[in-house]
Order: sequence, then C-alpha cells, then structure tokens
Amino acid sequence: MDIATLIGIGGAFLLIAISIVIGGSPMAFVNAPSLLIVVGGGLAAALASFPMKEFMSGVKAIGKAFKPGLPEPLETIEFLVSTMKKARKEGILSLEAEIDKYYEKDRLLGDIMRMLIDGQDIEEIQSNAENALAQIDQQLTTEVNVWDALGELFPALGMIGTLIGLIQMLQNLSDPAALGPGMAVAMITTLYGAILANILCIPIVKKLKYYKELQLMYKESYLITAQAIEKGLNPNSLQQKLAALYGVEV
Amino acid sequence: MDIATLIGIGGAFLLIAISIVIGGSPMAFVNAPSLLIVVGGGLAAALASFPMKEFMSGVKAIGKAFKPGLPEPLETIEFLVSTMKKARKEGILSLEAEIDKYYEKDRLLGDIMRMLIDGQDIEEIQSNAENALAQIDQQLTTEVNVWDALGELFPALGMIGTLIGLIQMLQNLSDPAALGPGMAVAMITTLYGAILANILCIPIVKKLKYYKELQLMYKESYLITAQAIEKGLNPNSLQQKLAALYGVEV
Amino acid sequence: MDIATLIGIGGAFLLIAISIVIGGSPMAFVNAPSLLIVVGGGLAAALASFPMKEFMSGVKAIGKAFKPGLPEPLETIEFLVSTMKKARKEGILSLEAEIDKYYEKDRLLGDIMRMLIDGQDIEEIQSNAENALAQIDQQLTTEVNVWDALGELFPALGMIGTLIGLIQMLQNLSDPAALGPGMAVAMITTLYGAILANILCIPIVKKLKYYKELQLMYKESYLITAQAIEKGLNPNSLQQKLAALYGVEV
Amino acid sequence: MDIATLIGIGGAFLLIAISIVIGGSPMAFVNAPSLLIVVGGGLAAALASFPMKEFMSGVKAIGKAFKPGLPEPLETIEFLVSTMKKARKEGILSLEAEIDKYYEKDRLLGDIMRMLIDGQDIEEIQSNAENALAQIDQQLTTEVNVWDALGELFPALGMIGTLIGLIQMLQNLSDPAALGPGMAVAMITTLYGAILANILCIPIVKKLKYYKELQLMYKESYLITAQAIEKGLNPNSLQQKLAALYGVEV
Amino acid sequence: MDIATLIGIGGAFLLIAISIVIGGSPMAFVNAPSLLIVVGGGLAAALASFPMKEFMSGVKAIGKAFKPGLPEPLETIEFLVSTMKKARKEGILSLEAEIDKYYEKDRLLGDIMRMLIDGQDIEEIQSNAENALAQIDQQLTTEVNVWDALGELFPALGMIGTLIGLIQMLQNLSDPAALGPGMAVAMITTLYGAILANILCIPIVKKLKYYKELQLMYKESYLITAQAIEKGLNPNSLQQKLAALYGVEV
Repeated sequence: MDIATLIGIGGAFLLIAISIVIGGSPMAFVNAPSLLIVVGGGLAAALASFPMKEFMSGVKAIGKAFKPGLPEPLETIEFLVSTMKKARKEGILSLEAEIDKYYEKDRLLGDIMRMLIDGQDIEEIQSNAENALAQIDQQLTTEVNVWDALGELFPALGMIGTLIGLIQMLQNLSDPAALGPGMAVAMITTLYGAILANILCIPIVKKLKYYKELQLMYKESYLITAQAIEKGLNPNSLQQKLAALYGVEV
Repeated sequence: MDIATLIGIGGAFLLIAISIVIGGSPMAFVNAPSLLIVVGGGLAAALASFPMKEFMSGVKAIGKAFKPGLPEPLETIEFLVSTMKKARKEGILSLEAEIDKYYEKDRLLGDIMRMLIDGQDIEEIQSNAENALAQIDQQLTTEVNVWDALGELFPALGMIGTLIGLIQMLQNLSDPAALGPGMAVAMITTLYGAILANILCIPIVKKLKYYKELQLMYKESYLITAQAIEKGLNPNSLQQKLAALYGVEV
Repeated sequence: MDIATLIGIGGAFLLIAISIVIGGSPMAFVNAPSLLIVVGGGLAAALASFPMKEFMSGVKAIGKAFKPGLPEPLETIEFLVSTMKKARKEGILSLEAEIDKYYEKDRLLGDIMRMLIDGQDIEEIQSNAENALAQIDQQLTTEVNVWDALGELFPALGMIGTLIGLIQMLQNLSDPAALGPGMAVAMITTLYGAILANILCIPIVKKLKYYKELQLMYKESYLITAQAIEKGLNPNSLQQKLAALYGVEV
Repeated sequence: MDIATLIGIGGAFLLIAISIVIGGSPMAFVNAPSLLIVVGGGLAAALASFPMKEFMSGVKAIGKAFKPGLPEPLETIEFLVSTMKKARKEGILSLEAEIDKYYEKDRLLGDIMRMLIDGQDIEEIQSNAENALAQIDQQLTTEVNVWDALGELFPALGMIGTLIGLIQMLQNLSDPAALGPGMAVAMITTLYGAILANILCIPIVKKLKYYKELQLMYKESYLITAQAIEKGLNPNSLQQKLAALYGVEV
Repeated sequence: MDIATLIGIGGAFLLIAISIVIGGSPMAFVNAPSLLIVVGGGLAAALASFPMKEFMSGVKAIGKAFKPGLPEPLETIEFLVSTMKKARKEGILSLEAEIDKYYEKDRLLGDIMRMLIDGQDIEEIQSNAENALAQIDQQLTTEVNVWDALGELFPALGMIGTLIGLIQMLQNLSDPAALGPGMAVAMITTLYGAILANILCIPIVKKLKYYKELQLMYKESYLITAQAIEKGLNPNSLQQKLAALYGVEV
C-alpha cells in the first residue's frame, strides 16, 4: 500500500475543500455541466489518443499508484540466490519441479526459467527476454502516457469550457448584475481542469514513472539471475550484484 | 476500424455541442469568417511548413487514425513461420512462386523476399532494408509532424483572430452596448483554435505516433524473418521471437 | 520552386488581410512605430545572438524555403552510377577528365572525387568528408536557428511594445474616450509579433529543417558512392542502395 | 558552507520584503489560509508524486544546498595517491589496516577497498561499483525531482487558490467597494506560488543538480583509483588524472 | 571584437528607448524600486543557483559575447602544421624550446605538448586531454547556464513585482483616478523583466553557446595535432584535416 499517494492526493483535495468552505457558499463550486465537459471531454479526447484496450488498462493503472504490487527486495534476493544454489547443487533440470513457483512470482521469471530448463541457448534466452522487456516497457510507458494525456487535456477542456461560458455571458450583457455570477460559472471549468491536472494526474504520472523503473529493474534482475546460473557463477557474487542493483544491504 | 478514435473525437465534440446548446443561443457560436481565418490560416501556414506532397499525404493520414490498416499479429506470425518452413523444406528458390503474396501483404516484405530469392548477400539485404525502413520512418514521422504543426497553428491563428477582433472592437467604443457581443465574436476564434487543437489534432498526433511504432515493428519483423531463413534457424525459435516482439501468445 | 511555401505564406497573409478589411477601418492596423519596434527590435536581438556573418547567411536562407536547390534524385542516381561504371571500366584515374563536372554538381562531391583520384586512403577520405559534413550540418543548423530565434523574438518584442503602450495609456486616463483606441494601438505590436512568428518564421524553420536533412542525405550519398567505387562494388548494387536511400524507384 | 545559497535566497526574500514594506500596508500580504493552500497543497501533491521515504529525503536534501558536504579536492587527491603508494610499496593487503579510514571518508570508497583487499576480480568490482553508482545517481536525481515537482506545484496551487478566490468574489458583487480587496486577496496565492517557485525551489533544483554531478565525479574517482592500484600504474599518473578530472592544479 | 553583439543589443535598446520617448513622458518608465526588485532579485536568485565562484565567472562571461578571444583559424593551422613539420625534421624533443609559445597560445595546447615532449604514452595524453576538455566544457556550460538562469529569473521577478504592485493598488481603490497610474507602475517590473530577458540574456546565451562550440573545436584540434605528430603523419594531411574541421580553405 502506497500511503504517500493516499495522504498526498487526499490531503490536497481536503485543503482545497476547506479553503472553499471557509469562503462561504461552497455550493457555488459544484456545477454538473462544468464537470461533464471537463471530465467527459477530457476522457473522450484521451480515449481518441490511444487504442481502446491501451486506454482502458492505462486508466486502470491508477490502482498501481496506490498499490504498486512490487516484489519485496530482500525476499527476492533470497529467492533468486536459493534458486541458484539449488541449480548449482542439483543441476538446472532440478528447477523443473519449482517452475510453478517462478510463474507465480512473475510471468517473465517463469518464461526465462522455462527456457533455461529446456536447455535453450543463453543468447537466445537473453534476446527473447529483452524483447519481452521492451514489450513490458512499452506497455507501462503507455499507462504513464494515458495519465499524461489526461493531465494536459483536463486543463485544455477547462479552458474551452471557460471560453464557451464567457462568450455566452458576453452575448447578453443587458443585466450587469448577472455579469459577476456569469463569469464565476465560466471560470469553474478552468478550476476543475487545474485541480484534476495538478492534484490527480501529474502526481499519478510521476508515481507510475517511478514504479515503472523499479518494475523493469526487478524484471531485468531475473535475466541477470538466469545468466549467472548458466555461467555457474558464485551465489555470493549474485547476492552482492542484486543487493547493489536493488540498493539494499544483505 | 479504430473505434476509440471515433467514439473519442465524436464524444468530445458532442459534449461541447451539448454544453453550447444548453447555454442557449447556439448560433452565436457559428461564425464563418472566424472559421475561415482559423482553419484556412492554419492550413495555409502548415502547408508552408512542408513540401506540397508531404503535406497532402500528412493531411490524408488522418484516415489511419480511424483505420490503421495494421497486420493481424497471430495471422502474420503464422504466415511468416509457414514461409520459413517452406524455405527450409523446399529451398529458398521455392518461394519464387509466392512472391506476389509477399508483395500483397507488404511492399517491403516483397522487396526483401525478392532480394533473398535473387541470392543477394544477407548483409546487403539488411543494409537496403534498413535504408528503406529509415525512409518509411521519416515518411510516417512527417505525417505526425503535419498534425503536430496544425495542433500548434490552429490556436496561434485563433489568437491572431482574437487580437484582430479586439483591436477592431476597441477602435469604436462609442456604443458600450456593442462591447460585449464584440468581445464575444473576438473570442470565438480562440475557442475554435482550442477545440481543433485539443479535440482533433493532439489525439490524431498521439494515435498516429502509436501506430507508427507498431507499423515499423511489423516491418522490422520481416527483416528478422529473412535473416532467420538465411541462417536456417529453427521455425519454433522464429515463432517465439515474433510472439515476444508482437507481445502476443501463440 | 517550392510552390507550397509561396501558396502557404501568401494564402495565410491574404486570409488575415481579408479578415481585417471586412472588419472595416483597415488603416487602424497599419502603424509604422509598432512595425519598427517589432521587426527592428527582433532583428537586432537576433543579430546579437549570432556572429554577423552567420546571421546574414541565416536571414538569406529564407530563399531556400522558396527555392531549395536540391539535386533531382533520379538524375543524381544515374550520374553517380555512370561515374562508377566509368571508374570500373577505365580506372579511377579516368575520372580526372570529369573533375569539373563533379565540382559543378556539388563542391563536396568534387572534393571527394579529387581525393579519390589523388589516390588518398579511403579512410582518410571518409574522415575528411565527415568533418566537412559536420561543418555543413552546423552551418545549415545555424540558418535554422536564426529563424527560430526570430520566431521567438518577434512575439517577445510584440509583448514589450504592448507593455510600453499600456503603461503610456494608463498614465493619462483623464480622457476615457481615448482608452479604447489607446489599447488598440498597444495591442498592434502583439498582433504583429504573432503574425510574423506563426505565418512566417515557424513555417520557414520547419521547411529549412526538412531541406537540411535532404541536403545532408544527398551529400552523404556522395561519400557512399566513393566508397563503392573504391571497393569495386557492383554498379547495380550502388543503384539499389541510392534508390532506397533517396526513397525513389529506378 | 555554501554562502551563495544563503546570500542569494536571503537577499531575494529581503528585496521582496522591502518592496512590500515601502508600498505600505505590509500586513495585507500576510494571509494564513492562502499560505495553507499553496504550501500545504503543494507539499501534499508532491508527496503523492513520490514514495514516502524518497519524498522525505528529497525535502531534507535542501540542507545540501546550504552545506554540500563535498570532499576537498586537493586533500582527496593526496589521500588517494598516498593510498596507492602504500599499496605499491607494502602490497594491497596492507590497506586492510586503513579500511575504517576509507569507510569514514566515503561509504562507496570503503566498499570498493573492501572488495579490492578481498581479492575480488577487478571487473566484478567495477560492475558492482557501477551498480552502486547508478543507485546513488538515481537517489540524488529523486532529490532534485522532489524540488522540481514543488517548483511546479506551488505556482499551480497558487493559480488554483486565485481561481477559488475570484469565483467567491464574483459571486457576490453586490458591494463594488469589496471588489478591489477581494481581488487582492485572490491574487496573494499566485504571488506566494511565484515567490516559492522562483526564489526557493528553482535555485535549490539548480544547486542540487550542480552538486549531484560533483558528488558522482568524486565517487567515480574512487573506482578509477582502485583500477589504477590493481593495474599497478604510476602514482604520478593517477595524480595527474585526478587533477584533470577535478579541474585543479597540484 | 564581435560587432554583432554590440550593434544588436545597442540597437534593440535604442529602438525601445525611441518608442518610449515618442510616446511622451519617458520619465514614467524610470522607476528605481522596480529596477531593484527585478535586477537585484533576479541576480540574488541566480546567485543561489550556482556556487559563488561559478556565478561570478558566469556573469563576467558576458565579456566573451563582445570579445570572444578565439584563435584565428588560418594562423592556427599554419602554427600547428609548422609545429608538426619541426617535430618531423628535428624530432619531438626539439619542441621543448618552444614550449612557452604553446602555453602562450593555449594552456591545454601547452599541457598536451608538455606531455608529448615528456614521452608520455599517447593514450594517456588523450585520456588526460579528454578529462581536461570535459572540465572546460562543463565550465563554459556553467557560464551559459548562469545567463540562462538570469533570462528566466528576470521575467519571473518582473511578474512578482507586478503582482505586489497590483495587490497594493487593489487594496486602496478609494481614489479611482489613482487606478491607471497605479497599474502603470505595477506593469513596469514586467516590462523590465521582458526587456532584460529578450534583449540581453537570451542573445548572450545564444552567443556564448555558439562560441563554446568553437572554443571546444579548437581545443580538440590540439589533441588531433598531437596524435598526428605521434603517428608521424604527413603534414599536408594534418593541414587538410584542420581546414575541414575549421571550415576554411588553405
């Protein structure tokens, strides 16, 4: 559970809500058509920017900002090193019995181990793993891009909404008393766009980018482990390498 | 058919139309001279930014955002792997009979197969294919750039239109009652520019960029197939490689 | 002749002129001091950004956006391939007689052929040609940069002019009737800056960048030809390579 | 102690304070709710952008902008060169006695020396040191990114605060006398955001980036020293290399 | 002497001064506190962004925009080629007598020649020279960065000054007659920031960047010369190489 995302986004929304309430008349800030044009229009324009499937999984990726689902580093080092020890002592074929455990931990780890056990050439394993990594990288990048697009489109739709409101207001200036409230309503879409972009989308983009790098680092370390097993390196040396890579002490 | 582009752009325009209609007086938002300066001026300035032929094919590339025309991954894998099997069993020359099918699937695939059957050196095939890929990459990039330029020029022309409108309005302030409608008309070009850029051009740019990468990936896989045929690799190994590259399971 | 630059820039200026004229009082948009501060100030600040010689040749490079002066691809392929055939049949020294034709076509081609005929080592020819290409690249990039700088400075000077105008207007608000026209005059410099940047400079920058890449591609192909001659490759193979590089069919 | 950070930030805040005080009514610029929404909201949105631990150490990194804690170049050269001389004269194992001094100077130096004394392969030492350097680089980059995020979020929250204030003010325009002060209050959040971003965050970002490069350069020089010891190079040659790297004269 | 910097910056300031004077009341544009907050505040915030020594030498680097102090290309080619000829005829040790001339021309040239005469390995000379070049590159880049920071901070402080002025003005709207002049004063800081950034800082940044590349090119050519001497290449070949690198004809 990423407590920082929860406290951060929750806290920022709370502070904005408080500053609206203490200014009186909070209901003036709730406007359904404004919300519709900013959120609906922004989502629609972002949908047009990606293939349907990629857009959907991108939107859902918000969950990762709250629950990244990353492996625990020390546990993973122990798991990979013990796998290597087993392979050294009992031979690579002995890993066949544990193949389900590898797939359970991570699909790419399973695939790599499958190829290793099947006796595929290590260079071919590496080439296939790198292709798969590039695929995963591209997928995670698309998830980031969806939120990046939303972070640009919500304020853009906010501005469009404000322009529409201002033009409507300017067209009937007969009643000067309506000028102020008219402008206030026009400005609400800009406010919605700014809040959604800065309090929601931009933090989500940064958090997803951060976790993307970590995710890829873990997946690369599975390939490093397979290479170490194949070369018959010292398990201590693998442990040291993984610890330096993960930035932890064992 | 890319349903996301259709729903996305259509939906966003619909939401904007609704929010204009429920504000009353929708005809105030239709202004032919404003449309002329934004769309006409933007197209003209973008035309000046590219050679005529590149501009034309760039504008037409909007069709790809709705109908990308990409190969179907599983079918393509099967097609390439079966080609390889045939070459292995009956010799490379046996592919001569199918050359039309290759050209039909993709012109680059046809050219690569042509060179392979003609017995050209694999390094020369690779060098020629890479030159052709660089050419295609540049062409698709230019298509993206045309929509990128339009996405910058429509709002710029919108701002120019608004400045012209404001200067005209400020010059005869004798009738204060005309102030509001005057400003409203001036702002319509900015609105047009913002809508065209954010609802049309920016999504098109992102979608075309996404499909460009896919397109190049497929074309690269044709070269990979030719290399695998030349080296006499195992067809299973090619199948695995293509599946990892396309990100599908076979 | 690049007809797109002419139609594009001419058409955009025409559309703006029309939209000014149909708004009445077109003379309100002609203001010599405003033009002086935007164009003069922008040119002066851009001049300070480059050495005198580079600035001058950068400004003159606008001619290339209308008349790129690029070689004709099919003709060039034929010329280079026939050169190669001659070298193959009659020996490299036989090219001595045609050296003026090479210099006439392109100075770098002449230099490369000169070195080839003089029997210089192909690696040294390559190293010298690459240095010369880097020089040309830098020169063409500077030309693009001059128009890029103008495209940023014209709007900046436009804003400076508007600020000066507004401050002057705000200082004597005694006559409210002068407020409107005063603001109108102040805004004219912003309008000039926006028009010059978006209708002139930005398209010129894009067009020059496009032609720069083409120009460098042709020059690189001269080095490729010299390498092919030195290696004694098959002329057909050179023809194919050049066609793939230029993106044409022979 | 980095006197420039202190004088710079202190001086800029002082100048702003003076210009507020000489304008009279300085208390009009102190507004607790405005401060709360800009600082609190900005910190909350930045917190959501990073994992909790990284955010905390990023915020604390402001201390480094005042007290960078970098090694003294001449002293470090002397220290590393004398280490090399000792290793040359008495053997690498003799460095065992000084291991605490290495860890005291820098943890990475200690780790590298530990591996060297333990007789690990130099390539493995290099690979582990580079992994550790990549880790440190990423950590220092995250510290910079935290202040970069704050530098973007403070003005964004300032704009959100101003929009809220304006909407509240426009909603009750009954008393025109309240218009001015209302707008003044609304604009205070924009002012706070601009001051925090430009006087605090942006200078901190630039300073931290500058020190990050220096920090990494020193850490790389420890690996260079270990490589020189292992190769048995001339100590003078190491001294020259470090002096050129640090940009000092010995 | 770089006449373009002088004419460019001088001319732009003159044009702005003229357009202020012909608008009447030029004294309205002179405001000491406004100048203090923009220039003083901008310098202070920039000072905080760099270490004291780097900031000082960065500010002083403005001199190079007027007097670049670059070597004369033809003279330098002759000097380097004649050095090579001497080394060829009389041996590398004969250059010892001229070592002061090398240091006089350029410190890096002196250092490289010193190492060459001392019989150091050419690879070590190269490695040391590249370290020194990286150092010089970083130093020149920091000089550019100082002016880049000023070019961003002057307008930022201008905006801060305008916000302060507007808030002060809005707080006492009792006298409507004071509204105009109050806003005029508030806008002066924005004007100062825009002028300093666009007429001074941005041109200086571009000019310093241009000269930085030239400076590094000359320094690299000293290493190329040393390598040519060490390899015993033909002096004509060095002359050709340098001419191609400098982009001159000999």
